[in-house]
Amino acid sequence: VAQRERRRPGRRPGPSNTRQAILAAARSQFAASGYDRTTIRSVAEDAGVDPALVLHFFGSKQRLFVSVVELPLDPGALRELVAGPPDGVGERVARFAVTVFEDEDALARWTAMIRSATSEPAAAQLLREILTERVFVPLAQTLGVRDARLRAGLVGSQLVGLVMARHIVGIEPLASLSVDRVAQAIAPTLQRYLTEPL
Amino acid sequence: VAQRERRRPGRRPGPSNTRQAILAAARSQFAASGYDRTTIRSVAEDAGVDPALVLHFFGSKQRLFVSVVELPLDPGALRELVAGPPDGVGERVARFAVTVFEDEDALARWTAMIRSATSEPAAAQLLREILTERVFVPLAQTLGVRDARLRAGLVGSQLVGLVMARHIVGIEPLASLSVDRVAQAIAPTLQRYLTEPL
Repeated sequence: VAQRERRRPGRRPGPSNTRQAILAAARSQFAASGYDRTTIRSVAEDAGVDPALVLHFFGSKQRLFVSVVELPLDPGALRELVAGPPDGVGERVARFAVTVFEDEDALARWTAMIRSATSEPAAAQLLREILTERVFVPLAQTLGVRDARLRAGLVGSQLVGLVMARHIVGIEPLASLSVDRVAQAIAPTLQRYLTEPL
Repeated sequence: VAQRERRRPGRRPGPSNTRQAILAAARSQFAASGYDRTTIRSVAEDAGVDPALVLHFFGSKQRLFVSVVELPLDPGALRELVAGPPDGVGERVARFAVTVFEDEDALARWTAMIRSATSEPAAAQLLREILTERVFVPLAQTLGVRDARLRAGLVGSQLVGLVMARHIVGIEPLASLSVDRVAQAIAPTLQRYLTEPL
């Protein structure tokens, strides 16, 4: 299985490097081509490894996809968003999200996920989970508001729509607006969705 | 070119019926499979006509797509949205949009467009045009506000995100909420994007 690895003298990539190379290739392909047109074979080719090695590390295309779009969002970041006065949580979430999307790697993950979620049930389910259970439901619950799941869905709708309009479809001048101005524009929306009466 | 038509005695579909059959087949395929996987040939097959007839009526796949996703939004509807007190325009637009998405045919067009816009530059350009020049820029201009294009983009981001979250990805309970409650939830967002300081 790892023959192609062994044939590269002088480089000696460990399993960790190989896994990272596969992840990098998969991330870039899922973002550029979407879920359907990305294959285990094409990812393996890009990463310079045998397709069997991709399956060895990740098991299936769906699990590879899940690994790739795993959001760079640690529990500490979430606690930070909730810390501070509740009437500033909209601005903190807005600034955090808009800043995350400025990061090329993070944006590629979000783009891949959104693109794939429009046609692939597994990707749609993952996007649902991330927007609700993993991020915004806990956030809303920590704020102690009612309708945490509805609020999470509304916040998710605005953030997914922002990625679509600003980064994927590229509607000007929204697409080239500064992080500050975009965060300022959507902060009251997120604040209302998170803490105010709906 | 129209041989297959002529071979169907008793039905005698006119050019108008044929055109409608092609449009119906194209709409359903673009919605279900997206831009890339829909072909002139597959649409022709579904419509029961020769591929050359599809090209005869529409010229190219891109023009066929544009014809399919042409939004059911007449100038009268737009005037209605702007009529009435400016501080109610958010609610009128919210109610109008949420109601449009309840219509199966209209939702299929929007879904096809959004799905295709994530991977197809021609579709992305069309979505940009519809959300800005054709609908929300004129609306914002009629309201006499500054930053009409930015406001149009923000409204577009929330509406595209709503279609994604409620109809394509299906985030509950947003997905099964009543038209009234969804319109109520997003109306203040649209109001702010259209008329209030950003």
